[in-house]
Amino acid sequence: MNKYAILHIPDSRYCFATGAKELVLRLRMSREDDGTKVSLIYAQKYDFTLERHRQVMEVCYRDQLYSYYEIKLELKDVRFAYLFEIEEDGKIYYFSEDGVTETYRFEEGFYNFFQMPYINQNDVLKTVDWMRDAVFYQIFIDRFFQGNKQKDTGYVNMAWGEKPTPKSFAGGDLEGIIEKLDYLENLGVTALYLTPIFSSVSNHKYDIKDYWKVDPQFGTKEDVKRLVKKAHAKGMKVVLDAVFNHCSMYLEQFQDVVKKGRDSIYYNWFLIDGDVVDVEKGNYECFAACHYMPKFNTANEEVQEFLIQIAAYWMKEAAIDGWRLDVSDEVSHDFWRRFRKEVKKINPDCVIIGENWHDAYPYLQGDQYDSIMNYSFTKACLDYFARETFDAKAMAEKLNANLMRNLEQVNVMMLNLLDSHDTHRFFSEVGCDKEKLLAALALEMTFLGAPCIYYGTEICMEGGYDPDSRRCFDWEETRWDKAVLEKIKTLIALKKEEILQYGNIQIWEENQMLVVQRTWKTSSITLWINETDSTKEISREQSHGTRVICAENRLDGKGCKKGHLFLQSKGFVVVKEEMGA
Amino acid sequence: MNKYAILHIPDSRYCFATGAKELVLRLRMSREDDGTKVSLIYAQKYDFTLERHRQVMEVCYRDQLYSYYEIKLELKDVRFAYLFEIEEDGKIYYFSEDGVTETYRFEEGFYNFFQMPYINQNDVLKTVDWMRDAVFYQIFIDRFFQGNKQKDTGYVNMAWGEKPTPKSFAGGDLEGIIEKLDYLENLGVTALYLTPIFSSVSNHKYDIKDYWKVDPQFGTKEDVKRLVKKAHAKGMKVVLDAVFNHCSMYLEQFQDVVKKGRDSIYYNWFLIDGDVVDVEKGNYECFAACHYMPKFNTANEEVQEFLIQIAAYWMKEAAIDGWRLDVSDEVSHDFWRRFRKEVKKINPDCVIIGENWHDAYPYLQGDQYDSIMNYSFTKACLDYFARETFDAKAMAEKLNANLMRNLEQVNVMMLNLLDSHDTHRFFSEVGCDKEKLLAALALEMTFLGAPCIYYGTEICMEGGYDPDSRRCFDWEETRWDKAVLEKIKTLIALKKEEILQYGNIQIWEENQMLVVQRTWKTSSITLWINETDSTKEISREQSHGTRVICAENRLDGKGCKKGHLFLQSKGFVVVKEEMGA
Repeated sequence: MNKYAILHIPDSRYCFATGAKELVLRLRMSREDDGTKVSLIYAQKYDFTLERHRQVMEVCYRDQLYSYYEIKLELKDVRFAYLFEIEEDGKIYYFSEDGVTETYRFEEGFYNFFQMPYINQNDVLKTVDWMRDAVFYQIFIDRFFQGNKQKDTGYVNMAWGEKPTPKSFAGGDLEGIIEKLDYLENLGVTALYLTPIFSSVSNHKYDIKDYWKVDPQFGTKEDVKRLVKKAHAKGMKVVLDAVFNHCSMYLEQFQDVVKKGRDSIYYNWFLIDGDVVDVEKGNYECFAACHYMPKFNTANEEVQEFLIQIAAYWMKEAAIDGWRLDVSDEVSHDFWRRFRKEVKKINPDCVIIGENWHDAYPYLQGDQYDSIMNYSFTKACLDYFARETFDAKAMAEKLNANLMRNLEQVNVMMLNLLDSHDTHRFFSEVGCDKEKLLAALALEMTFLGAPCIYYGTEICMEGGYDPDSRRCFDWEETRWDKAVLEKIKTLIALKKEEILQYGNIQIWEENQMLVVQRTWKTSSITLWINETDSTKEISREQSHGTRVICAENRLDGKGCKKGHLFLQSKGFVVVKEEMGA
Repeated sequence: MNKYAILHIPDSRYCFATGAKELVLRLRMSREDDGTKVSLIYAQKYDFTLERHRQVMEVCYRDQLYSYYEIKLELKDVRFAYLFEIEEDGKIYYFSEDGVTETYRFEEGFYNFFQMPYINQNDVLKTVDWMRDAVFYQIFIDRFFQGNKQKDTGYVNMAWGEKPTPKSFAGGDLEGIIEKLDYLENLGVTALYLTPIFSSVSNHKYDIKDYWKVDPQFGTKEDVKRLVKKAHAKGMKVVLDAVFNHCSMYLEQFQDVVKKGRDSIYYNWFLIDGDVVDVEKGNYECFAACHYMPKFNTANEEVQEFLIQIAAYWMKEAAIDGWRLDVSDEVSHDFWRRFRKEVKKINPDCVIIGENWHDAYPYLQGDQYDSIMNYSFTKACLDYFARETFDAKAMAEKLNANLMRNLEQVNVMMLNLLDSHDTHRFFSEVGCDKEKLLAALALEMTFLGAPCIYYGTEICMEGGYDPDSRRCFDWEETRWDKAVLEKIKTLIALKKEEILQYGNIQIWEENQMLVVQRTWKTSSITLWINETDSTKEISREQSHGTRVICAENRLDGKGCKKGHLFLQSKGFVVVKEEMGA
């Protein structure tokens, strides 16, 4: 047994409540110790010395180095004390707060057992249930579609479809999105994530000068309300972008400081080094090195109040369904805690999605966000599909590691994406290989969490890094690959399967293929992906109760044993099975 | 290299700010890999691809399995990206969010470097500075001293000094503490922790029926104010006990529910299963299995408000210096977050000390408590001094592990105790061995954090488990061991040393002795403890600039080489040294 590998952290992603009396426990051990019998020894905390229960734990996840044993318990009493029993070569070891020991003094457990001292309901992260079947579509508004033909288009400085520059304006707007709602509904999309809509001098509008106003290029408050109303009528949710880390230097409050320096009542809204603001030098904290985007001081309660009022205003006015938080990792935990409380009070079903590119567990314990943009998933897809630095085994391990970063509830709400306005387009990253794009989308749909499709992916839009990933949507249907579009619709429709909304997940490598299996009640959905150069046989017979839902490069008929599944290079198949059928 | 052992968690006890621009980083590796060269590779986050810095890290702590490399950095920019470089047998490995790899794509670091995205000041745990030199004295009030001779003593049901039962009342009160302040000052105590003082039917008063009123057995609000004022005049702090997990069944609000059931406006203040309260059955959540102590529902904002008003009231009325939180691990994180904000607003210097017997890191990240009662330290002392299941090596490892549970600021504020009203008395645990008691106190004084002496330890009071650990203080001086008392005073006085307030700590085993060394500027204080059965030589010559501050069972003169230090069995020595002297 590799004692060094064993890890358990109480009251954390290794031990967390998923409901009023439901507790998940995870134990990490070395993969080399697979086969070791691991049991959970547990009791109501105050009965621990008297009577204890035991349950065997199973390995549910495996990454490169570790196996993760997991168990979910229904508790009678929510004061929970426990330790692990590890059996190796007939010898019993105990793993408690004291580490691995050969003996354990149960009568003094109150000093060193692990515990979940009490499940308090206000500490439990509740899943926003509509995220279970959500398929997001991210829209960079200026480039999606211009609906309002009457508006003053003096600001538009590029022809639709031209190569964009950082300063290009193409004319897309909210009315454009409204007009395309039928298109999006037909695509199967159930939620929209819109990049910022508030008043700003830029095309991306991540430098907001007036949070109370929709940018006139995009429309009006009435347009937002109308968009949300029409989306809701189609069962579609709308998530807006909250840019609360920083603002535009043209924000009224910052301009007041520019004018009055330390005498401004807003001086402490920002983090300024000196008595006066020097925009040239940028003697204040800002986003990246962008002097035109001064950072808010979210330790200031007035700033907290200001930002929360904005969030509340748009939730109440426009009935939006959530916020994506820009550069959220640079904003204080303290602010996000208050933010969560306030927005969940207004609408407990609103989703809070952080923009954290890294392990965001410190923000995802139930007191801050619900979810993040899952860029770790993005990177894994790049490594597997695009760069091929991952084989199926490495990919399976990485996806398992990704899942073990967070609570189950967070994994269910994770926003999984292949690309965004901040990356190269995935389709370009895979060398415009449609088979790879489809396989990656199949993975996105079967993985735990809500898939998010960057606008235009469905028509195979290409693009490098910003601004190239922000090209205009090509509405000329004759240029679309309709076959691919239909296949993508089929993949999106997968999310209607209850199994993919509620099912457990297991991911592994099998015969050099990536396998993702979701299980719920008596059914399962399994995805096989073959990214090797050769044809692979899936070691499973098609039986009664087995149904192929969609597939690409599946080798049928000739040369195949009846009922056997074969996948050619860059092929995938999604199979639904009834257990015991 | 044991890859399985390597652990780093960003934005955690492995990476935390200790000041506006000061960051501590820790990396855990296998002890078997000691000698491996570990470097930190870091940059301002947005410059990471362009230019990076490098610093070698040193092992600062070692527990049974692991070595902890630590480094403290002064940052220019608080947006911090990093990874670790590990050199083994001339080969370079990288440790990032992707684990240990042989190569690392720096140009794509934004996907997988570690980061402290931004040090926001409202997220940084600030040390309560007076904790640095605090020596606490815990008083179980009913058993300390009766000062008020005029009061109605009808409730007193035992003679002073008699063996207490769970229902005994001996008559101790606040006036008694006031009268003994000179005694405590003379002892060297600088802070008092009082068990609960509010209205209650029990002797311990952990079942409070009126939080707004001092229990008449103990005195009045005026007495509390006078006690705090007089203590403050002596430079002494006063910390009270906040029993916010549960109350007495006689609390007005609970009684209202008893009367009116679900119709009571306080019904949701508690966690009741059914329409009416059944005290006999206890159909509500309570502390342990004590039906007379119903648990508060701290998810209820009215309850939160009620408890916070109580805390605020006593802070404002009596100017107390902090709260010890009873059964704090069973109260919601959510409540403690709000509690911290409110009490720190009233007095940022007030200390918040939780009663968590286990690893309390989830409560000690800066948003909830400052500190806990360090029962893990207690247990280690029992294992080393009393049960002798630990030798010096195991003890050193355990103390190192204890320190690695928390942020540096928390370690500085930790309330280290040998015993309390909830344990056997330590003196009894070590078989009334005064040498062992003194050695343990020497360790308590030199360890990182604030020592807490349970009343009567200084006169070698004995006692088993509750109620026996709550005997009456024996004020008959003729029965005191004055020599031991003086030695304890000398040990307590150690905390006046700046080195013990500000110094770094290193703990190791040397020649079967436990060594604790604190280093600050150009000085150090070192404690050696010999708990073996034989005399041990300390491998250090006394040189110019070396001074023995206190010692027990030190072997001097005969048979000793001049200047050499020897410790007999159960001996210890505290030495102060000027470096380079």
